[in-house]
Formats: sequence, C-alpha cells, structure tokens
Amino acid sequence: MDIIVLRPDATEEALRHLVKKLESKGLRTNVSRGTERTIVGVIGDTSKVTEEEEDAIRVMTGVENVMRIIKPYKLASREFKSDNTIIEVRARAIGGKKIQVIAGPCSVENKTMLLSIAEEVKNAGATFIRGGAYKPRTSPYAFQGLGEEGLQYLVDAREKSGLPVVTELMDPRDLDVMLKYTDIIQIGARNMQNFRLLLEVGSVKKPVLLKRGLSCTVKEWLMSAEYIMSKGNHEVILCERGIRTFETATRNTLDLSAVPVLKNLTHLPVIVDPSHGVGKWDLVAPMAKAAVAAGADGLLIEVHSNPEEAMSDGEQSLKPHDFRRLMEELKPIAAAVGREI
Amino acid sequence: MDIIVLRPDATEEALRHLVKKLESKGLRTNVSRGTERTIVGVIGDTSKVTEEEEDAIRVMTGVENVMRIIKPYKLASREFKSDNTIIEVRARAIGGKKIQVIAGPCSVENKTMLLSIAEEVKNAGATFIRGGAYKPRTSPYAFQGLGEEGLQYLVDAREKSGLPVVTELMDPRDLDVMLKYTDIIQIGARNMQNFRLLLEVGSVKKPVLLKRGLSCTVKEWLMSAEYIMSKGNHEVILCERGIRTFETATRNTLDLSAVPVLKNLTHLPVIVDPSHGVGKWDLVAPMAKAAVAAGADGLLIEVHSNPEEAMSDGEQSLKPHDFRRLMEELKPIAAAVGREI
Amino acid sequence: MDIIVLRPDATEEALRHLVKKLESKGLRTNVSRGTERTIVGVIGDTSKVTEEEEDAIRVMTGVENVMRIIKPYKLASREFKSDNTIIEVRARAIGGKKIQVIAGPCSVENKTMLLSIAEEVKNAGATFIRGGAYKPRTSPYAFQGLGEEGLQYLVDAREKSGLPVVTELMDPRDLDVMLKYTDIIQIGARNMQNFRLLLEVGSVKKPVLLKRGLSCTVKEWLMSAEYIMSKGNHEVILCERGIRTFETATRNTLDLSAVPVLKNLTHLPVIVDPSHGVGKWDLVAPMAKAAVAAGADGLLIEVHSNPEEAMSDGEQSLKPHDFRRLMEELKPIAAAVGREI
Amino acid sequence: MDIIVLRPDATEEALRHLVKKLESKGLRTNVSRGTERTIVGVIGDTSKVTEEEEDAIRVMTGVENVMRIIKPYKLASREFKSDNTIIEVRARAIGGKKIQVIAGPCSVENKTMLLSIAEEVKNAGATFIRGGAYKPRTSPYAFQGLGEEGLQYLVDAREKSGLPVVTELMDPRDLDVMLKYTDIIQIGARNMQNFRLLLEVGSVKKPVLLKRGLSCTVKEWLMSAEYIMSKGNHEVILCERGIRTFETATRNTLDLSAVPVLKNLTHLPVIVDPSHGVGKWDLVAPMAKAAVAAGADGLLIEVHSNPEEAMSDGEQSLKPHDFRRLMEELKPIAAAVGREI
Repeated sequence: MDIIVLRPDATEEALRHLVKKLESKGLRTNVSRGTERTIVGVIGDTSKVTEEEEDAIRVMTGVENVMRIIKPYKLASREFKSDNTIIEVRARAIGGKKIQVIAGPCSVENKTMLLSIAEEVKNAGATFIRGGAYKPRTSPYAFQGLGEEGLQYLVDAREKSGLPVVTELMDPRDLDVMLKYTDIIQIGARNMQNFRLLLEVGSVKKPVLLKRGLSCTVKEWLMSAEYIMSKGNHEVILCERGIRTFETATRNTLDLSAVPVLKNLTHLPVIVDPSHGVGKWDLVAPMAKAAVAAGADGLLIEVHSNPEEAMSDGEQSLKPHDFRRLMEELKPIAAAVGREI
Repeated sequence: MDIIVLRPDATEEALRHLVKKLESKGLRTNVSRGTERTIVGVIGDTSKVTEEEEDAIRVMTGVENVMRIIKPYKLASREFKSDNTIIEVRARAIGGKKIQVIAGPCSVENKTMLLSIAEEVKNAGATFIRGGAYKPRTSPYAFQGLGEEGLQYLVDAREKSGLPVVTELMDPRDLDVMLKYTDIIQIGARNMQNFRLLLEVGSVKKPVLLKRGLSCTVKEWLMSAEYIMSKGNHEVILCERGIRTFETATRNTLDLSAVPVLKNLTHLPVIVDPSHGVGKWDLVAPMAKAAVAAGADGLLIEVHSNPEEAMSDGEQSLKPHDFRRLMEELKPIAAAVGREI
Repeated sequence: MDIIVLRPDATEEALRHLVKKLESKGLRTNVSRGTERTIVGVIGDTSKVTEEEEDAIRVMTGVENVMRIIKPYKLASREFKSDNTIIEVRARAIGGKKIQVIAGPCSVENKTMLLSIAEEVKNAGATFIRGGAYKPRTSPYAFQGLGEEGLQYLVDAREKSGLPVVTELMDPRDLDVMLKYTDIIQIGARNMQNFRLLLEVGSVKKPVLLKRGLSCTVKEWLMSAEYIMSKGNHEVILCERGIRTFETATRNTLDLSAVPVLKNLTHLPVIVDPSHGVGKWDLVAPMAKAAVAAGADGLLIEVHSNPEEAMSDGEQSLKPHDFRRLMEELKPIAAAVGREI
Repeated sequence: MDIIVLRPDATEEALRHLVKKLESKGLRTNVSRGTERTIVGVIGDTSKVTEEEEDAIRVMTGVENVMRIIKPYKLASREFKSDNTIIEVRARAIGGKKIQVIAGPCSVENKTMLLSIAEEVKNAGATFIRGGAYKPRTSPYAFQGLGEEGLQYLVDAREKSGLPVVTELMDPRDLDVMLKYTDIIQIGARNMQNFRLLLEVGSVKKPVLLKRGLSCTVKEWLMSAEYIMSKGNHEVILCERGIRTFETATRNTLDLSAVPVLKNLTHLPVIVDPSHGVGKWDLVAPMAKAAVAAGADGLLIEVHSNPEEAMSDGEQSLKPHDFRRLMEELKPIAAAVGREI
C-alpha cells in the first residue's frame, strides 16, 4: 500500500484519522490536495503492511482506493537480483545461453515405451526426459499414473539415456519418495496456488518447475514463485502452458507475451510448454518456434512414440520423427536470437 | 466418446480400421454417410472409454473430431438421481426448502471476536458459522491462519451459539485434525482441482462444500464433485463464488446463471458466496438477493464485527448490523421463490 | 492522469524535466519521495490531458507508471448528477419505481405474428414491444431482417397494443428512417464501440438503449454512454446482456453484479437482458428474477409465439404462457426490493 | 446442423415428428439408437439450413442438442480453396514468400511527421505505410483523427516513399472518399462484427485488412471474412491483434496460436499486430519475432518518430532506430522458416 486516494466527500477529520493510523504503524505521509481528489502518499517500509491491514484501510471512512506501487514479491523480482538466475542440473544450465528441451510422454505408461522415447528424444537433442507418474486428471475414472513404479522407470530412462528427469508432484505426502528419483520437481498448473505444496517444495534442495495456473496472472504466478523462494529454495523455473480464454479452436491460449514480460520482472528462467497450450501436434511446432523467438529459456514438449496405442497394438507413429525435425528447425531460430539448442 | 466425424478425405480403409478398433473394444457402430462428412455413431457403454482412448481415436488417420454425447460425470448427474439431495447437518437440511446461511469472518483471528460474531449472526438468522483456520493466501508473507487453535475457537463458537461449523481444508495432512472439529469441510476455489485432496475428503463421512475454481467450467466442477462421490462420500455442496473475467470493477464475476444450470444437471445442493464474488459490502447485499431469486439453496457471507481492526483498536463497524438488515430483506425474496430463510 | 510513479533509477533531471512538462500544461505537481519510489501527484484540471498526452508521459525517461484517479467519463457519472435519470417514453418512466419490461421476438418475421405477440405480452404486463428489423447476424447467409417493412409492422403493433417500440439500429444511414418509427433506439452489443454510430444517436432526440459489448468493461460501457451524451442526448439506458467467458454451459455469462456496480457509478437506468445472456428459456426465468432482485430498472425478454415455426406450419408453443407466468412470479420479488412491475 | 441428439426421454413420436420435419426440408436422416441416447444424422445440403431453422429444431420436443459438423463459412475455408491466396498490392504480394511489414504511426498527426516516418520505415525495410485518419477512440474527448486531410497526407507519404497505404475505415459513409486514397482498407477490431461495414467493403475492389475483435473466436473472425467475400471481394487479410483476457500485465493477450490455426482453416493471408497486442515497445520486438516464427505472412508495427511529442517539442526518440534494428533481427528468423523479409 503506497497511495491512498480519498473520496471527494472525505472530511478533514477522516484524513487526520487516516494519517494518525499510518503514523502509528511507523509510516510517514505526504498529503497532496488536488482539485478533485486528495491523495495520501505513504512513505516508509510499506512492504511490512499486510494485505489485512491494506484491506482495513480500504474500508476506512473517506477512503476511495488504495494503490500499491511496490511489487508484492521481492525475492523473485528483477530488482532484488538483476542478473539472470541459472539453474544447474546434472551439468545442464537452465537459463543460460543453451535452450533446454524437456521431452517425453504425458504419462509414464510402461518401462519399454519410456526407455524407447528417452533414447529417441535424446538423439534428437532433448536435454531432459519427462513423464507423469502421478497424473492430475479431471476424471476420477481416468488413469491416475503408475506412482512410484513410474518414478523408477524414469530413473531407468535417465540411467540409459543420461537425461535428467522432470516429473510432477501433486501431494506433499509424496515428496520424500519423489526426492529419491527426480531431478526437477514439476508443480502443475492446477496446483500453482496449492500453497501448502509450494511451501513444501520450497523447503527442499531440488529445482522446481512451476507451471502457470490456467487463470493466473503473471503477478500471481510470481507470488507463487515467491512462496517457494521464501522457504529458501531459489531454484524456480517458470513454465508458461496456456491460459483459459473464450477461444475454443485451441485447448488453451498460449500467452507467449508472458515470456518477455517475465524477463523484465524476474531473474528466474522461463520456459514454454506448447503441447498443453494448443493440444495438437501440427500447432506445437510453430508455437515452439515462436516461443524460442520470443526469448524462452527452454521448451517442454510431449513426445509419444505411439499416440494410438491405447486402443491398438502397433499403429505406427511419426511423433519422434516430428520431434527430430522440429529440433532441427529450431536451431536457426535459436541462433537468430543469440541462443543455442 | 459417442460420435466420430471423419475428414472429407478419409478413405474407406481408414473407416474400416476405425470400426475394427471400436469393435475390439466391445462397441458397435452406425456409419452415416453425409454429402460432406461421414459420421460414425458409437453404440454401447462408451462411458468405459477413457480419455486416453478418446485421444487415441482423435489422432487416428481420417478422424476429424470426436464428440462426447454422454456426460463424463455420473454420480453427480440429475440422470443418476432425479430428486434433490438434501444434506442433514446437526438438524439443518441443506438443499431443502429452507435457505441455509453460512456467515462469519474470513479468518478466525481470536476467540473473543469469533464468539461475538457467531452470536450476532445467529441472532440475525444465520444457520452456520464459518471462519478460516488454514488460509490460502496469495502472499507467503500474509497471515496464514491460526491452525488447530482456530479450529478450537470455531468449536467454542458452535458450543456457545449452536451453529454448526464450516471451515476450509487445504492439505490432506490436516484432515484427521479437522475431522475432530468441523461439521462441513470446505474445499476452496484454488483447490477445486487438487485431486488428491478431493479423493481424501471423498473417503470420509463429512459433508464437503466444494467451491468453484476461478476458471473452471460447470462441467469440470461437477467432475470434481464426482471425484469426491466416487470414493463414497455423496454429501457434496456446490458453492459458486465468482469466475475470472476481464472485468476489473469487481474482484470476480459472480456467475449466477450457474445456479439454474446446475439445478438442471445435478441433484446436489447449490449455494452462492457473493462476498468473494464481488468484494465490497455494498455489492454483496444485491447479489445475495439475486442469488436467492435465482434459486440458490444457501448463501455464504462474510461478516466482520470490525473491518478496520487490523490497524486500529476499536473502530466501529456496521457490518453485523448490515447483515441483520440483509437477512430481513431476503425473507420476502425467499418467499417469492417458494423458500424460507 | 493524476499520479505519476517514477522508476527506482529515475534521475533528478528526469524528475525536473517531467515537472516542467506538466507545468507547461498549466498543471501543478506535488512530489512525494518514498523509500522505494518517488511519486508525482498532478494537481489541476487533468481531465484536459488527453490520452495521447498521457501516453506521451508514460514513455518519458524515468517514468514507470501513470495512474488516473479521476474517472474518464463525466456526464454519465453519479458525481455529475447524483439523482437517478428517469426517461419518459409515451408515459412510461424508465428508471423509476416501476420496472419496465421490453418483450417481443428476436426478429420481426411477419405482421400477423408480431401483432399477436404484442397483444399477448401486453396482456401479460410487458410495457414495451421489441423486435429486430435490421439484424446483426454472424453469418452473411442468415436472415438479415425485413428492414423498413419490419419497422412498419412494429408501428402497427404499437397502434394495436399501445406498447412503445424498441428496435435496433446498425447503420448510421438508417437513422433517418428509424426515427420515423421507433420510440427507443437500441444499439447492439457488437456496436457498443461503433463510435460513429454512437455520435449519430447522440445527436437526435430519442432515447438510446445501449447494450454492453461482449468483452467490454463497465468503464468502457460508460465511455460509450458518454459518447452519446457528449453530443447532447442524455437519455441513455444501459442494458447488461452477458459477457464472454470460458464457460460454455451458457451462451454468455450474465454479469448481474454490473447492476449494483453501475448504480454506484452512474445515474443512468440499468436494465438486463437475460435471454441473450443465457440462451435457454428455462434459464431465463430464474435470471430475470435475479436481475430484479439485484436492482435492475427493467428487463428485456424475448418472447416467441411459435419457436418451432421456421420449419413448421403450426407447432404450438408455450412461450407466451411462460412469459405470463414469469411476470406473475416477478411481482413479489419486485415488491421485496421496493419496486413494482 | 448435421447431428441431432435426442433426450433420453424422447418418445418415438417426437422422433417421427423430427424426421418428418427434416424430410420436408429435402433432407434425409440416419437414426442411430445408442444405449443412452438416440442420434439423428442429417444428410443432404445442410448448409441451406439457416440459424433460425437450427434454433427451431433445438427447441423441438425431445431434442437435447444440435451439432453442426460442417463449417459455417465456405469461401474463406481451406476446403473451398486449397492453395494460399496471394494478394497483390502495387507489386507487393501479401501471402507469398516475402513477409510484408506495415509500419507507421497510430494516428496521422501532421504531414511533416508522417513523411519523415514513411522515409525512415521504408529505409528500414517496411513495405507499407500505415496511419489512422479516422480514429476509433474509447473517449469522445480524445483526438478523433484528421479525416480526409489525413488521407491526403498518407498519399503524400506514398508518393514520396513509394510505400502503399493502409488506413482504417470506421463508417460506410466514408468509403467513397477512402477509395480515392488508400491501397488497403483496414477494418478495426471494434468493427469486426460491424456487419454493414463488412458488406460495404465486400462490394468494392480493394483489399481489406480485417482485424480480430477483442473477444472474437477464430470461427467468428472467419465468418466476418466470409461476409466480405460473400459480396465478391475475396481479398481479405486477417490480422491478429490480441484478445481480451484477465491478464493485466499486457494490454491484450496476443494469440499467436491463431496463426497456425488459421493456416489450417483458411487460404487467406494472416498477419500479426504485436503493437496493439502488448502495448510496450520492449515487448513488441520479441513478439514480432515470435509471430514470424509462428508463420505469419506479415507484421503491422507502430512506429513513432517522437513518442513524447504530444507534450513536448523535441524529445529524442529511438523508435525508428529500434524498428530498424528489429527489421535486421527478423531476417534470420524469416529465413529459418523459409521466408524473406
């Protein structure tokens, strides 16, 4: 809270009362009387003023509006740390010159499939393997993931391919198990404001990939990063994955402008997941290119060796082949923006 | 999945292949050849077809679109249970003729304040006391709630006022403690798709008040109710509390049309929280009236005895008085729609 | 523009430069140096500062943000005129104690049908007849309205039923013709920011019913009212008809909180169109009741005597009957909020 | 209308009645009885079924839902014309290998400024000059444009620089004047569904640049293109310029996924306006790069020689310099996607 606007009908007494309250909090004020409104500038460490106190001022007699000038997050802000944060994971630097590519299936379905995909994406240039062992599904009747068995397969894939592992944590009770397996903990879009989970992953020494919530603003997203950082874990990777809008031609609307917006506001690495943002392979490739051109530090791309498999036993799939071509096509774009891939 | 639309260029072979797949799943098909598209109707128990299988069909050669006719939720649907579910909580019937009013402060701040509010709202006609002991806050630096101490104060308030307790659960690890205190477990908007938490509260014998997520569709909301019900707990109360839109004049946009929409789709009780939906007292009263007129089974309203208290030591507040007046004003509206309050 | 926030790194020279610019515009300044930001309060008639000038300040060296405190509309504001505007149309007062009900078909299809509906809605208690002669259709291949012939039928309906006419204007070139027939000119949602059309209807002596644009904020809506009023026509009726959100269970999301929000901000009458907001009859009735409970000054409801007619020659329809029942059901709700219907 | 889903409780008589209606329209049916729903496939030229008729079927007894399989636009669809439309304007091909860049100020303010900008953007590689002579402004008190005088300056700029002119039409009454000056007629976002204006520009021989409405879906956008094309003018350029969402860090959310989505659905050229989409220069450059990487056929970029000028008489501006640098930076990205700039 930094600026308080008074109502046109605010009395002198209401103003005095307000000023007294602020001074009782150790703050100073600067009253500016305009022709239509009187404005009170609040001077001092207003970051100590809590949301509750701000709300309390908002309902005081004579107050029309309270406006915060100072950002509500600190550790995540570019002002707190001006140089980019680079997160090292098994000799891969996220946030550095090289664009990191996290690839793999949506869910870990079985070991053979996962090892095969890991090998293929590694050969195509991916630098991390992903796959869900705990799956957030909108339906209770859908496959919920293999659990710890899936985590073990991811480690098998890492041992064979050399790719570090990214996988999602949904429940604080799974954290200890997960720490034994994964290299990066993913927090999914639906858990971006699961504050208890954020506090838990803030208390461990393991990088966190924080996906943007479906209807969360950039500011709220950075507040969720701040939650993690406030507990001591400063290794947070932000992942744009599409927001919810009225458009139905795509599953979500991938907000690529979030990339340069975040690059201004925060020092944390920013990656983009075009797969969840759009939903179809033929849209993923152009959006992956656009993400790199917009300045993303990395990509998260779903690769299935056999998208038809759930109902079949051998349909051929071009997906790994498409991924390989995409990786080739991304190279000149990365170079054009001073990056490598 | 019930209708599969083929692309205009789909071959006969692709069609045969698709039909064979479906038949291998125990389903029958009805092929309808139009002038511009061929459509495959799928006959049989398509509710067994998982999302994964549906997605797999979607990527098959020749397939343009897959459309589900059957609703993805079952236990929550009006078709499954045609008469309204009435949930009894300490002799109060939620979903019956009487409109239930849950009132109380946002957070439990201290015992004296809570007992005082409980007394006041009870006298005004509220039928439940609410207050947060575990608070989901966007900032890690804000007050996070009193925890179990707050739960104890809620029980103290219940003992004194006779009002049953509604309070929010954020973390599955707090469930056992919470069960000892609360009468209704609230799942907040930000946890509407915290699926692990849903499964946990689905496994206990305690009614669940499920708030709508900020960007969740009615269908997703019912799927989250289905999560809870699928574990055996059929006592779910749906609570509309505003969705996120571009409008900035209100904190959220209260979607009152969700009330009659839900009344068509589900047998579960539907209540409305105008406080979070709009954010200011002077908007809460008209929206509470509108909610009753729209057919809501209940209201959840924040009442503070002293909104300025956080920064002051005794500002007077008209809030309980406003609440009392609102309760009076709601009576003829409830009567007009055949209800009581 | 009233408050200018400087960047943390803004120099004293940048500040001097900014102050000099503002003074050259006849404005005075009040500089408030906080610990983290310096804030410049701008004093004087800032309503003369145009958007261009505001944007120009925003890009000046050292400026972080420019915030307007004063509302950008004036004639439409409650501060300009504190008492409610009541618009008289053929002895009906819109904005007074009596809730006005505008009813009729979406399009004027033929004379017989229109006269029949007019009679029926009049008998049920409607106070205005509506019907589109010029239809905004998303498809160029859909029926575009009967044009002037339709306007004539509306006048026929008025002569027979006594109900004044509301109909939509889409093109400034139709204004002269329309003035001969209609009592209230409707500006549709898709033309809410057709600024040329707004200026035209601002220049005539005829009340204007201004629908809210599908993605327009309350502020923009009032700016569009201001457009009309700035040309001299102060008889503007605001009509909420649903905004666009991600929800697909309803055609739009009817934003009933706009009613009390507008009642605070403006003196103009506010009516609600639940028909376009939700799209189905069974949802229209509860939302009409909710609108009245929320404080709306009127309703706009589509009534068809024969909704199946386009493909048939005599299906019976209960719609006028449903309307009659709704009008009855609205009476106690209107009474409950101190109104008549 | 192509598929009609019956309610679970639909009677045989209702089905017979429905089939008879459809047959009376010259359509055939294919009834598919599933275990939970009966589905009626409609065979024949359903494109002749109007929206009204579709709505009429929707309200028939026993009908639960009507689903269109066939796209509601035809001339704009990729199915109607499989190869890309290339629009030639004074020897520039929009939609071809070369990415066209339309640059210039938001408004035409004066001749000297415009000629200077035209020269600068031309030297930097722009291929069209833009500038508003008629300005859609949210406030009636803001500068509304120079009108025909501004159009003359644009022609002066074309004569001096050789760059063809793009400028916005807001009112059908200005069309004749505009045709004398401009090379491409722009229809702004707020007029995307000003159907009368669309019909007018559909009747002339001049390419139309159709901006996407702030809350319009891709389907509605293509329907608006269809409006223009239905009158004979097939030279329509689609311009993505951001949609409205809850995010406030940017003015709008630039939906770059619309580029590949449109490339699938339509043969029309697609360009991107990052300036309106994001609002700040430092975000425009990365989004312009992203747009090219996503496959856009062109860019529309605002260039001001002196952004502070409205309040000053000589502030230096780096904008044309920034534009020049951006044009250089775009070259390797264009090359990476097989294009030139």
